[in-house]
Amino acid sequence: MDKGFRRSMPLTVAFQGEPGAYSELAALEHFGTQVETLPCHSFEQVFASVTQGTAERGLIPIENSLAGSIHRNYDLLLRNQLNIVGEHHLRVSHCLLALPGVKLEQIRQVHSHPQALAQCEASLARLGVEAVAEADTAGSARLIRQQGARSAGALASRRAAQVYQLEVLAENMEDNPANFTRFLALSREPQPAGESPSGNYKTSLVFSLRNQPGALFKALSVFALRDIDLTKIESRPIPGQPWEYMFYVDFAGHAEAPVCQRALNNLREYATFLRILGSYIRHFQNGALPKDSPKN
Amino acid sequence: MDKGFRRSMPLTVAFQGEPGAYSELAALEHFGTQVETLPCHSFEQVFASVTQGTAERGLIPIENSLAGSIHRNYDLLLRNQLNIVGEHHLRVSHCLLALPGVKLEQIRQVHSHPQALAQCEASLARLGVEAVAEADTAGSARLIRQQGARSAGALASRRAAQVYQLEVLAENMEDNPANFTRFLALSREPQPAGESPSGNYKTSLVFSLRNQPGALFKALSVFALRDIDLTKIESRPIPGQPWEYMFYVDFAGHAEAPVCQRALNNLREYATFLRILGSYIRHFQNGALPKDSPKN
Repeated sequence: MDKGFRRSMPLTVAFQGEPGAYSELAALEHFGTQVETLPCHSFEQVFASVTQGTAERGLIPIENSLAGSIHRNYDLLLRNQLNIVGEHHLRVSHCLLALPGVKLEQIRQVHSHPQALAQCEASLARLGVEAVAEADTAGSARLIRQQGARSAGALASRRAAQVYQLEVLAENMEDNPANFTRFLALSREPQPAGESPSGNYKTSLVFSLRNQPGALFKALSVFALRDIDLTKIESRPIPGQPWEYMFYVDFAGHAEAPVCQRALNNLREYATFLRILGSYIRHFQNGALPKDSPKN
Repeated sequence: MDKGFRRSMPLTVAFQGEPGAYSELAALEHFGTQVETLPCHSFEQVFASVTQGTAERGLIPIENSLAGSIHRNYDLLLRNQLNIVGEHHLRVSHCLLALPGVKLEQIRQVHSHPQALAQCEASLARLGVEAVAEADTAGSARLIRQQGARSAGALASRRAAQVYQLEVLAENMEDNPANFTRFLALSREPQPAGESPSGNYKTSLVFSLRNQPGALFKALSVFALRDIDLTKIESRPIPGQPWEYMFYVDFAGHAEAPVCQRALNNLREYATFLRILGSYIRHFQNGALPKDSPKN
């Protein structure tokens, strides 16, 4: 839950996709069902909506447990001046949706995004149905409603069933249950330190280094020698520049905590570029508690 | 080019997708146009074809410059016992394909995978055409040929134009030219050391560490203190186990080179799990030369 925003007007949260998209479901889980969600055609439009004030918050996917990090959204974080103020792990559970009254046996065709169809391949094979590609999951649910199709279903989120007044014929259709997407909440204003009772913060940053032997090792020493835990590290080659990389790092702690400030100042001695994307309260997958509490 | 395989019979290379897929184009670029390509329905089937000997090599995508690493294929590398014996960087250039004789002005609809459609959004908007989602890029080209559709085009690879006897009406339709996919070549046998005149090798490995402060820093010291350059590092959370990670690392050098052997033995002191996925000759994006040659 976003603790940084309290007022009587409902919060508006921009997301990419149609009503009923997984991003909308994540927004409702993270911010609470009282918020207003604003569907956006593209990720660029999510950033623009928050920047221009049409929405107070944006929610974007940043990595998936099967597909990996979404580099394009890191690019947009760098190109825009928004702050990460929260994170949310969504368990991606594909539901088979159909018009009310339709029975599972009547379904001949299942519509969805090719990635969702691929993730449910074994389930669909067991049902003996034909897979039909569409531009997105929620759009497939809308299609079933608009066409009144009684021999067709859609693979989409439980939220899409509500939005398009469909019934959930089956859930957890995905073959691999370890399917999580991590979302980031964006705001014009940074998340202030000290609002979390546990101090259970995480900070995301991007940096690049001089092309020198041992440069990454030196960079990581600024965290390790201060007992700051990393929760993510990823190198990304800079296209056309062999041996040059951007590094995406998340660490446990708030960027304004004194020990983290010292670590970041130390990192600035090595980095040719550094941008702090935001500090925010940590959200654990499955609500699990950490075995090892962060120190900051 | 794969230097490890010389005989009179053409090499068979398994790839995921239909004939004309980007993976097939990458296979022909990497192994040469004399090889036979074997289309597979799934990545699992690519691994099975090479394991069972139906194909001598497999070629799988492992990361894309915009979309990030393909974790699923790391999972398959761990679940199977194949060796990485090469890498290939493919510039993903989406072509607009149509039946011979069809003019650009006649095109009203463009079919492709939703990701390709999204990557060409601005180009398609300029043409004022309708985007239609399909299960894959090469399948869209096949559809245009099968239906004899003269008001429709497909976004697919240049290779798909050859396979389905279509014409390239426009190329480089993608809005962002920095779109590269890195592929890995797989074989039952490892790539022996010493076949590269320059010794320009790369090694890929996966490991996990004890959940202890500074564990990653210690692990990376085994490379840094021996002046071994890392070319990739990525952490991946283990779902349901907060604070536990798998690490994907590539370093410059062959796993059998003495200094690399010592580094890997040192890493085994810290790692709770370690698997070397293979050593192979490095392939530079755009054919660019490294600024800084690897030391091993």
